[in-house]
Amino acid sequence: MNKTALYTQILQLESYLCVGLDTDPTRLPTHLRHKPEGILIFNKAIIEATQALCVSYKINTAFYEAQGTAGWEMMEKTLKMIPKDKLIIADAKRGDIGNTAQAYAQAFFEEFSFDALTIAPYMGEDSVKPFLANPDKWAILLALTSNQGSQDFQMLRLKTGELLYEKVLEKAATWGSAEQMMFVVGATQAALLPRIRRIVPGHFLLVPGVGAQGGSLEDVSKYGMNAQVGLLINASRSILYASSGEDYAEAARAEALKIQQSMKICLDKYL
Amino acid sequence: MNKTALYTQILQLESYLCVGLDTDPTRLPTHLRHKPEGILIFNKAIIEATQALCVSYKINTAFYEAQGTAGWEMMEKTLKMIPKDKLIIADAKRGDIGNTAQAYAQAFFEEFSFDALTIAPYMGEDSVKPFLANPDKWAILLALTSNQGSQDFQMLRLKTGELLYEKVLEKAATWGSAEQMMFVVGATQAALLPRIRRIVPGHFLLVPGVGAQGGSLEDVSKYGMNAQVGLLINASRSILYASSGEDYAEAARAEALKIQQSMKICLDKYL
Repeated sequence: MNKTALYTQILQLESYLCVGLDTDPTRLPTHLRHKPEGILIFNKAIIEATQALCVSYKINTAFYEAQGTAGWEMMEKTLKMIPKDKLIIADAKRGDIGNTAQAYAQAFFEEFSFDALTIAPYMGEDSVKPFLANPDKWAILLALTSNQGSQDFQMLRLKTGELLYEKVLEKAATWGSAEQMMFVVGATQAALLPRIRRIVPGHFLLVPGVGAQGGSLEDVSKYGMNAQVGLLINASRSILYASSGEDYAEAARAEALKIQQSMKICLDKYL
Repeated sequence: MNKTALYTQILQLESYLCVGLDTDPTRLPTHLRHKPEGILIFNKAIIEATQALCVSYKINTAFYEAQGTAGWEMMEKTLKMIPKDKLIIADAKRGDIGNTAQAYAQAFFEEFSFDALTIAPYMGEDSVKPFLANPDKWAILLALTSNQGSQDFQMLRLKTGELLYEKVLEKAATWGSAEQMMFVVGATQAALLPRIRRIVPGHFLLVPGVGAQGGSLEDVSKYGMNAQVGLLINASRSILYASSGEDYAEAARAEALKIQQSMKICLDKYL
């Protein structure tokens, strides 16, 4: 899906919500917890309950890898359940030297036909470039993450005066255009969005951290929205585990609807 | 395997070689290239040919992920072929927020019983800590990598005067002791090893980049060795693809032997 198509979808659904399928088997509703097919039943119900309210799904590969080989099969099956008009993101945070990055691009873009992959920037340009070879696919680079540990290195002040994450944004924006690259910026960092928008005015930002991690949808939208919206806000745990009972899908839908309604208001106010 | 056991093994085999099983199906010997079990036959022969000459094997997960679900099965089967007295490293360069890092630790240390995992440092302390929960397992953090892209961010000068990779070493060394943490330092960066050893004198370093990438075994050993050797030098492509003919295993053994013989000399000179 290209940038214009994504923008069009956002306007149509009045939503820039990405639903994170970080499905943790230990947090499934009780009646599904000990069924081997529990994760798939759960994911299917969540996708059906939320698809009218979101433009994207994000699969956090860790939760599937944690189930070993069987987990990769579940990921493959989950992928097939997602409607083709959604932007499907592998949240895998890969990053390695050129020939290895090439193999990861093959894994996620060809073997598993994801539309986008999250990537760690530490190894630099040649670790990112292989993900930009296919113009229909997106590389989503970590810039400023939502966790406490983001303070350790991302916020270090460089000799030139910039912070490390600012340098990452600035440099990476020369490797790939806003048509192919996005950046991860945690919702807990909303106060820094005006600075970030000065460096990357046109790029989409993938924003985790609304919900369970405490970031504000209103603040992110106010300071981060650009002329083509430019935001995908992810919610995972707050939707997936809205109820631990048999009504989990309805509860997930209600939570997604609440977010979508707030997004509709933000679109009216800030777009 | 703990640090003392690793040191003992190195002295016994007179080798600090780690053989990288970055098995690329397109580079298999011709007679194995189109067999579905080709990768497994190849890995088995390489392991048998090299196990007397190395103390560790490193599986680069990208090359297995690139084969989809079938690739994870191959990784699982390859793991079972490796003798239990070797340090088995998953070169997966993971890194994510706490609950996700926890899931990756489960994937690599429990589902797949690796001894060690490579980790990207960009997301900071809470993305690394979950890998240190089990005292028998190792976290191997990227510090200064062997590729061109290492110049982009790792070599940035901070306001405090240090380079970013030096700060990563310094900070991360406070999170885990030399008994549980190693650092990746590319062999192409041998000139910086004296500085690195001032920051982390006691830690093992995992050193890729000898062989195909052009780093010098002699220089790495001269500047990087500590009192317990403190080096695992990885070679992948130079061993795996020493011959593309039916004699690939013998050729791999000959290449590994050449490296081991050089290591024996370095141990005599620098330990």
